[in-house]
Amino acid sequence: MSQILIKNANLISMSENKEKIIYGIDVLIENNLIKKIEKNINENVDKIIDATGKFLIPGLINTHAHIPMSIFRETVDGYKTQEWLEKKIWPMEEKLTEEDAYNASMLSYIEMIKNGTTTINDMYYLQNATLKGAIDSGIRLQITRTLMDIDGSGEKRINELEDFLQKYTNINERVSFNVGIHGLYTNSEEYVQRGIKIAKKYELPINLHFAENFQEVKDIKKIYNVESPVDVIEKYFKNVHLILAHCVKLLDKEIERISKLKVYVSHCPISNLRLGCGIANVLKMLENNMCISLGTDGQGSGSNLDMFETMKFTALLQKGILEDPTQITSYEVLKMATINGAKTLGLENKIGTIEQGKIADLLILDLDMPNTRPINDIFSQIVYNVKGINVDSTIINGKVLMENRKLQIDVNEKEIIRKCEEIINRINKI
Amino acid sequence: MSQILIKNANLISMSENKEKIIYGIDVLIENNLIKKIEKNINENVDKIIDATGKFLIPGLINTHAHIPMSIFRETVDGYKTQEWLEKKIWPMEEKLTEEDAYNASMLSYIEMIKNGTTTINDMYYLQNATLKGAIDSGIRLQITRTLMDIDGSGEKRINELEDFLQKYTNINERVSFNVGIHGLYTNSEEYVQRGIKIAKKYELPINLHFAENFQEVKDIKKIYNVESPVDVIEKYFKNVHLILAHCVKLLDKEIERISKLKVYVSHCPISNLRLGCGIANVLKMLENNMCISLGTDGQGSGSNLDMFETMKFTALLQKGILEDPTQITSYEVLKMATINGAKTLGLENKIGTIEQGKIADLLILDLDMPNTRPINDIFSQIVYNVKGINVDSTIINGKVLMENRKLQIDVNEKEIIRKCEEIINRINKI
Repeated sequence: MSQILIKNANLISMSENKEKIIYGIDVLIENNLIKKIEKNINENVDKIIDATGKFLIPGLINTHAHIPMSIFRETVDGYKTQEWLEKKIWPMEEKLTEEDAYNASMLSYIEMIKNGTTTINDMYYLQNATLKGAIDSGIRLQITRTLMDIDGSGEKRINELEDFLQKYTNINERVSFNVGIHGLYTNSEEYVQRGIKIAKKYELPINLHFAENFQEVKDIKKIYNVESPVDVIEKYFKNVHLILAHCVKLLDKEIERISKLKVYVSHCPISNLRLGCGIANVLKMLENNMCISLGTDGQGSGSNLDMFETMKFTALLQKGILEDPTQITSYEVLKMATINGAKTLGLENKIGTIEQGKIADLLILDLDMPNTRPINDIFSQIVYNVKGINVDSTIINGKVLMENRKLQIDVNEKEIIRKCEEIINRINKI
Repeated sequence: MSQILIKNANLISMSENKEKIIYGIDVLIENNLIKKIEKNINENVDKIIDATGKFLIPGLINTHAHIPMSIFRETVDGYKTQEWLEKKIWPMEEKLTEEDAYNASMLSYIEMIKNGTTTINDMYYLQNATLKGAIDSGIRLQITRTLMDIDGSGEKRINELEDFLQKYTNINERVSFNVGIHGLYTNSEEYVQRGIKIAKKYELPINLHFAENFQEVKDIKKIYNVESPVDVIEKYFKNVHLILAHCVKLLDKEIERISKLKVYVSHCPISNLRLGCGIANVLKMLENNMCISLGTDGQGSGSNLDMFETMKFTALLQKGILEDPTQITSYEVLKMATINGAKTLGLENKIGTIEQGKIADLLILDLDMPNTRPINDIFSQIVYNVKGINVDSTIINGKVLMENRKLQIDVNEKEIIRKCEEIINRINKI
């Protein structure tokens, strides 16, 4: 049994019906669980962390990413999306090996730990490598093998996904699974239905790119012969736990309709801007009581896995577009990056808040820096000013993976960086 | 004579007609000037900095800020602008002393140095304190005493500005001046003209808030009895070096008209979103060959003085709003934050690029971190991924103010933070 005692922290638990902030409180972690949250806990423990003056928040949850794409960051400038995929990404992806995907995933995991993200939802391929990296690095992962049949690989992908689920279902307590259906426009009705069948069989969420851009919506209308992409969701995805990445191109009435289903939105504002998709109407979704979580998307379009930056963009874009600075509170945005992320992945009983009995996935923030003082509003401070550099310590599953900004994992950061550079040099050669 | 030799850097000079990047080159700094840029310089110098594998870029230039407002960061959430000013900012400002402004300015200067900004344009009051802080901290400052007569203080402010200019004109080589006219809506025609007269007398740029929001434009039309706020600019500001902060609410044809004048735009995207103003049409301005530089605005609305973040918002907003990812290159955005900033402040012969004969205001960037590798496009890497943490060293006026992320100035950072917290505690009491 391992015990960690965090002393004298300022606790932002994000749990409903509790005080939004409690100053000077102790948190006892036993193995991977939060055992006790009280003033002045005195127990003999293996490790004491003095968090005096620091802030404890739940670890951030990134609900949409393509983890091995770390090595493709900043390849997109000057391209339209389709051209970028055809000329840059797909030719590079063809040359990726499992080992490449492992190293590229490790780069992402190190980036996450250093920037306060504790859980990530992956949608890619070479998933064995991504899974192994998650186990080695200590992060929490929800993973899939993405389904798509537009390129004729539908059957192969279905088989790979089923093999993957059967082989790994209980591999590690930090790993969960979903069924990734790449898109409605990249899957025929047959494969959409087969994906849903697998999700029902294994009782997993479905993870779907949806309404990201204008062209996609046009394609869906044509392929499915429908008036609205929501028609397809209503027809096939009733009573399915459905994670929808993007939702940029939805009309108000489509948001109203979709809000009645068991739908969770992963809002990816930075990627949506970068690819020229536009800005999702998050406020309309909130009005309709939808659960909004946040994603960075892959680094190819999202540049990095920085969830603090994603919170900032989320808040500012809604205020700016509506031209109303009173819209969307900082507390609401922090919820999106924590408990809403947990709900989106179906993990809300385990993570997303700091509460007794939940798993210890949390961050210690050091705000004693010139860009984060004075503190006039702690929630706005977190959303608008905190950066990775303020993440003093990252704890996942009760393990300290970074302390005082030093990685505590058995990984050579510089070596991973070098290997990733070698990959990109190799696959860029003819 | 002091000499610093930077060895083996990857140079991004931002000077026109030169290579965009030169790998493995040396830069010799003598006193405050760049003396030589060559391969393999061998001289006996006071200090050698090994920049192997690192990137040298010009120091970033922030062309719109209200420096002592650091202590007001995150007081704005939930308020409309006017209500925020009336209920929060003005009552607090009334209680500020010169010493408060000094400490609040120092907090901003430390923030700048640690985040790679070397020059800042201030528009505020208590300017003696802000000036003293700049001299003490080592940063480069352009400063004014802002003119405004809507509150009946017009005459007083004019006198204070003239006194200030006469007293301090040659106080320090790092300090330059402009004439800050707060706004057309906060000054009558008489005071606008008196401000212009002072600018002409001292041969200084004019610094003006302009077309920031809808209400301002409405007010200008009414006060000046004009069809467009540009009518006022055309009438009074011809042949004046005019820095216009914001320019959010300009129609396309107004941009075309204003582009024909000697106008420099300070684009402040983060503050504009935060206050619900909207998004300036930067692409239209670029089409009309206008000089766009970047500003953070005061931390009250801009949260921080992070010019890397400002570059990222600038690029992403234009791509996202126009729904065209090919728009606005990363190189163009880096120009805005460097040489265009210098042009805006009338300092382009001194700073803004790394060239022989120019003043040594420059940054050494360390990109060997998980969020900034691999490097597929160095300019996009800088605009979309580099953060303050990547600024290894900051050199201003030939002096190393930060090295290996450690401040080299005679200022106690923690003490400044504590003092700023004391100020806010004091002025928030009744």
